[in-house]
Amino acid sequence: MEPVDAEGRRPVTLTGLEPELERALDLAGVLVFALSGASLAARRHFDLVGILVLATVTGLGGGILRDTLLGQLPPVALRDQLYLAVPLVATAFVLVAHHLVERMHRPVLAFDAAGLGLFCVVGSAKALDAGLGVLPSVLLGTMTAVGGGVIRDVLAREVPTVFKADSALYAIPATLGAAATAAVWSQDALDAPQAGAIAAAVLVVRLLAIRRGWRAPTAKRRG
Amino acid sequence: MEPVDAEGRRPVTLTGLEPELERALDLAGVLVFALSGASLAARRHFDLVGILVLATVTGLGGGILRDTLLGQLPPVALRDQLYLAVPLVATAFVLVAHHLVERMHRPVLAFDAAGLGLFCVVGSAKALDAGLGVLPSVLLGTMTAVGGGVIRDVLAREVPTVFKADSALYAIPATLGAAATAAVWSQDALDAPQAGAIAAAVLVVRLLAIRRGWRAPTAKRRG
Amino acid sequence: MEPVDAEGRRPVTLTGLEPELERALDLAGVLVFALSGASLAARRHFDLVGILVLATVTGLGGGILRDTLLGQLPPVALRDQLYLAVPLVATAFVLVAHHLVERMHRPVLAFDAAGLGLFCVVGSAKALDAGLGVLPSVLLGTMTAVGGGVIRDVLAREVPTVFKADSALYAIPATLGAAATAAVWSQDALDAPQAGAIAAAVLVVRLLAIRRGWRAPTAKRRG
Repeated sequence: MEPVDAEGRRPVTLTGLEPELERALDLAGVLVFALSGASLAARRHFDLVGILVLATVTGLGGGILRDTLLGQLPPVALRDQLYLAVPLVATAFVLVAHHLVERMHRPVLAFDAAGLGLFCVVGSAKALDAGLGVLPSVLLGTMTAVGGGVIRDVLAREVPTVFKADSALYAIPATLGAAATAAVWSQDALDAPQAGAIAAAVLVVRLLAIRRGWRAPTAKRRG
Repeated sequence: MEPVDAEGRRPVTLTGLEPELERALDLAGVLVFALSGASLAARRHFDLVGILVLATVTGLGGGILRDTLLGQLPPVALRDQLYLAVPLVATAFVLVAHHLVERMHRPVLAFDAAGLGLFCVVGSAKALDAGLGVLPSVLLGTMTAVGGGVIRDVLAREVPTVFKADSALYAIPATLGAAATAAVWSQDALDAPQAGAIAAAVLVVRLLAIRRGWRAPTAKRRG
Repeated sequence: MEPVDAEGRRPVTLTGLEPELERALDLAGVLVFALSGASLAARRHFDLVGILVLATVTGLGGGILRDTLLGQLPPVALRDQLYLAVPLVATAFVLVAHHLVERMHRPVLAFDAAGLGLFCVVGSAKALDAGLGVLPSVLLGTMTAVGGGVIRDVLAREVPTVFKADSALYAIPATLGAAATAAVWSQDALDAPQAGAIAAAVLVVRLLAIRRGWRAPTAKRRG
């Protein structure tokens, strides 16, 4: 139960999600996405610079896009020194352990799914904290979750995963997670177990979608 | 004739274009561009998510880019709830009436041309209202008009229409419309008939360019 | 030696780099990059609009990205009228002297290297002036230097130079230049000879990298 002020409203300085928790979830998301970007770059035989750039844009791109649209500039990724260190660590890991990364297709998919869950919760919570409505907050949460991957795919000249009609559900679990975050947030402040449960549910739905081949519907075609 | 204050200047709270009119023109532009993005996605057999994403970026991308560069953040597309509803409507329409959309190549081109006209007027008017000079405002008006389509083409991995040397005039009518808006704006506030006339003229020039095959000049080649 | 206030600190209104010098270096960088973008567009047989767009995004893209992330909006490219005039001049030059541009592959590479040097110095100095830490400032300096080129390549559907494993060092000289700028800046204000020397060193390293085929390391591969 969050403290309320004399008139029963939560003070403006309190965010829905506890700042330290939000930062920890956010950094965890940056790490798993940076690993997925660096791994893609290494598999495509990009050089050191290409690996570092893809690790950075995949890990930080979604959050930078979110902070820019919220007008919270410079983005937290440039103000909090820890953020930029994370893609450096991911790049070093992939350079040293490339043979390991090549074998770990499954762990990378799991990392990516974890990032999806973490970022949709953090992204929509930040948008709600900034005073945006429910629909824009769900959009920003989804954009935070899938944005880094879209920028990664555009720069690496791949068809963005989010557009492939034959790919398993990707944006939809993120959108559902962002909507769940908004639903909980509108009742009361989001706490750690709630945030974690939503992120975990998104991860599970994404992994089930991969295993069972769940697809989004397509436009009806003349037959 | 706009009201002026005691010293003969228009009050700062008044924009060149009446706010409600500007919003109506802007939303009409969002709708026609969202329809063009959703139609392209459906023709490329993207799934529900892909259609919704392309409808959203095509409809809202130009305006979000404009608001970001003007420093008016969060962009109006995230503050005014109606904006995000429009791509949802466009997506629903394309999903339900896909067979109709496939047949309506011409109407889509007309919608797109209408969006071009509406956005170049609204975009340059907003930039002028924000205090930018004439040249930057003409650029922002053009960017508002063609920006969503460029993002759509980059994400869908098409050569951006605006770059194809063999394509009919696209950016040039928008630039002329933005310049006309700046010319009228610098005389006095822009009113509804003037804004509508410029948008209609851009639409007509664009459709004539398609029908008659008007092209922009290219660099001279040796030969 | 910069003037200091009564308590021995540099006044806040003073930037590390003298404003007029910063502007001159910045505009020189815009010009050389705009020429490189316009030349690429002309070689790809883009029309007038395509040439102007590529000249503009290549010349101004990195700086607009930097100003946006710093929250200095509208970006200087839209506030200072001279900035937008530069890509117009570059476009006119390339349209008129296309036969000359086709022959001048080497000068274009040299121009591009000059832009790299100028922008990494200006970009990191602006970020440091805005109060960012060293690591984010080095990143922003590098991004200012390579950003316009990356946007140019994405729009022209080329693999971004910065990602090609077989290409000579490009981002690394810029990163070293940004780091050198930060090192000098942290001692005292950067002056004209220092800024010029760093930019020149980046240019020389880049040109040597092209001539000698210096490459960035790649991830170790099995076997």
